[in-house]
Amino acid sequence: MKNLSVVGIGSTVFGQHKSTSITELAKKAASDAILDAGIDKGRIGALYVGNFVSGPLSGQEVLGGILTNALGLGAIPATKVEGACASGGIAFRHACLSVAAGLSDYAIAIGVEKMTHQNTNVVTEALNSALDRDIDGEAGHTFPGLYGLAWRLHAKHYGTSRAQVSAVVRKNKRAGLKNPLAQMGKMLSEDDIINSRVISDPLRLYDCCPVTDGASAVIVTTTENAKYSKIPISVLSTVQTSGNPHVPKCEGPMSFQATQVACNEAIQIAGITRQDVSLIELHDCFSIAEIIDLEDLGFINPGHAASWAEEGRTDIDGDLPTNPSGGLISKGHPVGATGVGQIFELCKQLRGTHPNQVRGAKIGLAHNLGGCGVTCSVSILANLNA
Amino acid sequence: MKNLSVVGIGSTVFGQHKSTSITELAKKAASDAILDAGIDKGRIGALYVGNFVSGPLSGQEVLGGILTNALGLGAIPATKVEGACASGGIAFRHACLSVAAGLSDYAIAIGVEKMTHQNTNVVTEALNSALDRDIDGEAGHTFPGLYGLAWRLHAKHYGTSRAQVSAVVRKNKRAGLKNPLAQMGKMLSEDDIINSRVISDPLRLYDCCPVTDGASAVIVTTTENAKYSKIPISVLSTVQTSGNPHVPKCEGPMSFQATQVACNEAIQIAGITRQDVSLIELHDCFSIAEIIDLEDLGFINPGHAASWAEEGRTDIDGDLPTNPSGGLISKGHPVGATGVGQIFELCKQLRGTHPNQVRGAKIGLAHNLGGCGVTCSVSILANLNA
Repeated sequence: MKNLSVVGIGSTVFGQHKSTSITELAKKAASDAILDAGIDKGRIGALYVGNFVSGPLSGQEVLGGILTNALGLGAIPATKVEGACASGGIAFRHACLSVAAGLSDYAIAIGVEKMTHQNTNVVTEALNSALDRDIDGEAGHTFPGLYGLAWRLHAKHYGTSRAQVSAVVRKNKRAGLKNPLAQMGKMLSEDDIINSRVISDPLRLYDCCPVTDGASAVIVTTTENAKYSKIPISVLSTVQTSGNPHVPKCEGPMSFQATQVACNEAIQIAGITRQDVSLIELHDCFSIAEIIDLEDLGFINPGHAASWAEEGRTDIDGDLPTNPSGGLISKGHPVGATGVGQIFELCKQLRGTHPNQVRGAKIGLAHNLGGCGVTCSVSILANLNA
Repeated sequence: MKNLSVVGIGSTVFGQHKSTSITELAKKAASDAILDAGIDKGRIGALYVGNFVSGPLSGQEVLGGILTNALGLGAIPATKVEGACASGGIAFRHACLSVAAGLSDYAIAIGVEKMTHQNTNVVTEALNSALDRDIDGEAGHTFPGLYGLAWRLHAKHYGTSRAQVSAVVRKNKRAGLKNPLAQMGKMLSEDDIINSRVISDPLRLYDCCPVTDGASAVIVTTTENAKYSKIPISVLSTVQTSGNPHVPKCEGPMSFQATQVACNEAIQIAGITRQDVSLIELHDCFSIAEIIDLEDLGFINPGHAASWAEEGRTDIDGDLPTNPSGGLISKGHPVGATGVGQIFELCKQLRGTHPNQVRGAKIGLAHNLGGCGVTCSVSILANLNA
């Protein structure tokens, strides 16, 4: 997939939208993206919606057709794609694929999830459908349980400390304070974190992304069409992989192979080196995930991401700005929306209009991970005029 | 999308599989398709799984990654696509898209649903997620209710009679007796049908497809690769459309625009006329749907499909063999599997190996419809050596 650009972006605030239906949430983000692109919506030839649990939580499926109708986009093909927490990144890749294959001039990727209207048990049960139910589900696992285990494995191999992981939490919560789309920004001390309640030892409340409602949308077209856009952002690569759905056996250090494969391929297709990347938006569903992900992405050697966090090297003005949006920990994680929201955040950065602007941002990388590494999406975007 | 062929097919029996998990069901069909293709599975570069309600009914999502892992297909991109009852047709189209775009040499489309382990109320609630919940859901509609209404609209405009609709039921139930994949074949009299219990007047029990478990899978590749296959079946076109998610207002005769647009486009892309089509597998979720669909597909003038059924013109040896598999009414409707199952059935016919073989079958058309016409898939396949 070559010669593609993002020319329109839209997003709702991530937070509680209890009185808005999932269709209305998605429609709002999509309408904003179409407006931002400044195109006649009749030119949109395909719609992809990334969503994970609209069925069990809202009793609403077939969101593709429902949204196409709500947006007045006519008879175009419209598809919900699902890959657990990576659903949004997968939707973005498929919008790119539709344009790259010549099936549409413009394609829209929408990510949406509505979760806060349901109680915690119902939400937990729905999220557990990203486990392999025949194996991990039978064993009674949950995601906080599995990421608690992941932390223990990482700590066992590399000595990762509570203070190092807390540095991730504090950075991302701090960034969220300045991002108007994030509702959980906060100034936190180390004591605030270690005094918050245990969710799944060693994970405490502030280590976990909140349950959230929200929608994001982006519009993709050819680089040729994008010439007429204000600030087109080029898609250098977008890659999707599968991985082991189970937490790996405890023999080796903790890592997600789907991330490793996806990032290596995305870097290669983009024709860049990791040194060219100005910033990363990655899948910090739990604090420890940011550390594991940075190592899996190959930007920091295994066992060193924790100290990078502690030394501030992943701050907005650090060596490798990571999650300047506030990440999932601060923005929240409206599951299907997250991956498209990351593309939204990268575009804001690469346009130079982000509230937490990374200086000289030219190339950004988005990383969206589903389940316990069962599916992954990595996309690399650039402002070639920056 | 040009120069594509189906080179491998597999399917479980459609029926009750209470002791088999949804993952195992899908794995069985996929393994059979890979075996049938006679290829090294390492050549499969993408997996699409069509599924509708595995979340609410089996607590299992992220089926793409789960299945890729279960089948040992490595790190390839794997995506669940959902478009209600058209999910299977959409999965097939995306497998085609992946090959046509040059992203994979071979791609596998799997359709799967597991439903019979849940009670009727849970299943009905899950199926209702194909309605627009903000509108039809609020109004308390269900699909039998909506198709009962569709029948009334059709009858009001065209005088469609009970005996004519019964002819569809009797034909499809009769065909199912000879298809080993169908579990609801039966010889029925007119009296059997009108004495069966009312589901949603005028729909009676035998007018409705049963709740079913099942999985089907097909493997797509380039026509070039397909040269090495035993009996490659060419994909002349595969089209996906969106339509109005609501039952149309009662001003005009009953029809589904998504079907009309999809079929016109599919015929045009295939470069054929309707007279070239040897047989049709279409979405008879209810008996009346077969009549409406044949008119929407443009094979029979509006208002005449009911008399064609009564006169036997849609029988296996008729002018326009329709649902020689037994259709959804006889095979059952494991929702996400149905669209892939239709491709399976067409391939059997076009290979000349179907238990209800249509004589001289050369070109077949599959029609898969979601919700109340909110999403549609039409594919045209051919045996170019027949």
